[in-house]
Amino acid sequence: MKNARIISVGDEVLSGQIVNTNSSYLAYQLTKLGFLISKHVAIGDSHLRIEEEIDSFLNSKDLVVIITGGLGPTHDDFTKEAVAEKLNLDLELREEALSLLDVYFDGEKAESDNKQAYFPKGSILIPNKIGTADGLIIEYNNKILILLVGPPHENIPMMEDYVIPYLKKNVNNNFLNKEYLIMGKSESHFEDLLKPLYNQLKNVTINPYGSIGRIRYQINGFNDDIIEFNKVCLEFEKLMKRFIISDNYDTIENKVVSLLKEKGYKISFGESCTGGMLSSMIVSVSGASSVLNESFVTYSNDAKIKHLQVNKETIDKYGVVSFEVCEEMVKGLRAVTNANVCISVSGLAGPTGKTKNLNVGDVCYSIYLNERIISEKKNFKGSRDLIRTKACFWILYRVFGLLTFGE
Amino acid sequence: MKNARIISVGDEVLSGQIVNTNSSYLAYQLTKLGFLISKHVAIGDSHLRIEEEIDSFLNSKDLVVIITGGLGPTHDDFTKEAVAEKLNLDLELREEALSLLDVYFDGEKAESDNKQAYFPKGSILIPNKIGTADGLIIEYNNKILILLVGPPHENIPMMEDYVIPYLKKNVNNNFLNKEYLIMGKSESHFEDLLKPLYNQLKNVTINPYGSIGRIRYQINGFNDDIIEFNKVCLEFEKLMKRFIISDNYDTIENKVVSLLKEKGYKISFGESCTGGMLSSMIVSVSGASSVLNESFVTYSNDAKIKHLQVNKETIDKYGVVSFEVCEEMVKGLRAVTNANVCISVSGLAGPTGKTKNLNVGDVCYSIYLNERIISEKKNFKGSRDLIRTKACFWILYRVFGLLTFGE
Repeated sequence: MKNARIISVGDEVLSGQIVNTNSSYLAYQLTKLGFLISKHVAIGDSHLRIEEEIDSFLNSKDLVVIITGGLGPTHDDFTKEAVAEKLNLDLELREEALSLLDVYFDGEKAESDNKQAYFPKGSILIPNKIGTADGLIIEYNNKILILLVGPPHENIPMMEDYVIPYLKKNVNNNFLNKEYLIMGKSESHFEDLLKPLYNQLKNVTINPYGSIGRIRYQINGFNDDIIEFNKVCLEFEKLMKRFIISDNYDTIENKVVSLLKEKGYKISFGESCTGGMLSSMIVSVSGASSVLNESFVTYSNDAKIKHLQVNKETIDKYGVVSFEVCEEMVKGLRAVTNANVCISVSGLAGPTGKTKNLNVGDVCYSIYLNERIISEKKNFKGSRDLIRTKACFWILYRVFGLLTFGE
Repeated sequence: MKNARIISVGDEVLSGQIVNTNSSYLAYQLTKLGFLISKHVAIGDSHLRIEEEIDSFLNSKDLVVIITGGLGPTHDDFTKEAVAEKLNLDLELREEALSLLDVYFDGEKAESDNKQAYFPKGSILIPNKIGTADGLIIEYNNKILILLVGPPHENIPMMEDYVIPYLKKNVNNNFLNKEYLIMGKSESHFEDLLKPLYNQLKNVTINPYGSIGRIRYQINGFNDDIIEFNKVCLEFEKLMKRFIISDNYDTIENKVVSLLKEKGYKISFGESCTGGMLSSMIVSVSGASSVLNESFVTYSNDAKIKHLQVNKETIDKYGVVSFEVCEEMVKGLRAVTNANVCISVSGLAGPTGKTKNLNVGDVCYSIYLNERIISEKKNFKGSRDLIRTKACFWILYRVFGLLTFGE
């Protein structure tokens, strides 16, 4: 497997003023091309630091480095110059770059802009379709150095139009990748389940990527190992079974909306502690209008009584976080909306409000589907927002299960 | 100034599966504490790579390193083990960590979870309040190594509750920092406004940290420069005036809830394209129950007609994204809820649906307050989610302005 690294140059990344989305974008693209990423590095606008990093790259086993930032016209842009110096390459004026600059500035070019037309001898130019500073590729001692500008809206077109085709041509593109979205248990439970499979792995790798309430498992390998790769995927599916939400890069929100669309169902929510988050997760999917007409945020007891026909006596007797209240909420929601899938949720998101019978993180919910009401209770750990977010993902997971397997 | 570096361990960062928000968050926090960041590095789950980076840190002039990731229970978590090996420290069972694990799992602990209770001899434990893997601080040869878990929702509380107080007490106790939350214009607009102030700076620094719809400005200095520091803060406030939402690390959601509480007001939303997100942002604040009773997600035309008393003719005549529809929505919402502040929003979040008169990102909203209705329209750029999120922050900004300045 061929190795690559990514270097970001710029003080604003270093001090945390901007999130380094370049690194993840470039790493994602390189991974899809079959590269193994060895490291990301972010350094400041410093000649010395850039030269140190070039040294480190030249002394490594990595084949490719992509460096972003420091190609502009200002006094603290000197990535190209530092790289050229390190590699002992002269800078030369490139007419095609100069004429691009002239077109861009249309007679208003500043003196300092001209340095953007000088490039290390023998380098391949990457035209910038958006801004003024072009990128470049340097082939040097069987290594490849790719220099791109910093702003994502300028370097993404450079990457897509020039760098990816260049690397596809120059690198064996025989990489296999499969991603599974897994929900319903903790990461350590799934890891225990997968232990026998991990022990069998030879050239194929399995990597879990956990986020709130869900885990994406990546299975990676090369064409030469396609038999092992397919076997591992099959075995993985056998072990994970019902916990698999998607096997093609999809999200739970999309899957639920797709399932509802397929069945011609409408969904509606009566939300208390989640406060509209569940509804918003459905609306985040383009085309949600064909599955969601309306939802209610009934945060106060009165709102539950007024909009969802809950009886005051039920709240007084069982408490507002109870099966009984959730069931009345979901029945009322169904009566008001006539939606095929109705969901009510009431919980204690905290951090205050704990009682003898109710802990922070306790969440009750009812799901109405096909004349049936399922009521369940779970406890979620964490901050107020984490409890609310975990509850939403869990409930979507349950809806997915009910729509797919009927339970 | 003392130097620090940040190392992220994890294949999921390296392969671009997730954006490395840890690095920017930690860099921001360290900068706030008076550190100069020398570099960020991201490496994979590899024993060798971790040891290489520890070597590089020990041989550098940096005082502090924060390493995130690789502390969990899985087979590819071994940051703690690699660091201990490199520093020649034995791992020992820590009873306090073991008992936290037992409480967390409540009898369902898996075999692989136990390794999370072993720590290098002499290290300071950082309890994980959310997940299972604790962090740690190692003081070694006048250097400080801080190991945190990878997931942001787990390492942020660790940083805030333990690491920041530790660094404040032990390393930088004479650092001055003030943070302003600024909203209402673009970052470049504010940067232009601040140019005269930037030109006057001597030892104090100003750093903008932009996120969706809002910018946090950090003003930093040391105790020796307290006169300049106070002057810069004063000048900053004069230039920014009405764009200042908070000067003490608060969020816009908190500020709006506090203002509503102060005035004894209730707020209610009638949401179309935002789909419950606005309501959920208010509910995210602990104590929201005293300001929000109920909200409606009226995504379809019928729901707007049924729940918010919108006339079908108004939708037919002006389109659903229009001042006229938003005004009817907000009047209906006020009639149904009697809330002091009522907000309706209708927009085209895209990516499809563009017409001759309506662009993707066009969002109309009406705000009812004190017998007055204000209707406005804005266009937000970006993806579906970005448009929805920007619209929510913008509307909260407008509510803040109306509650604070009456306009």
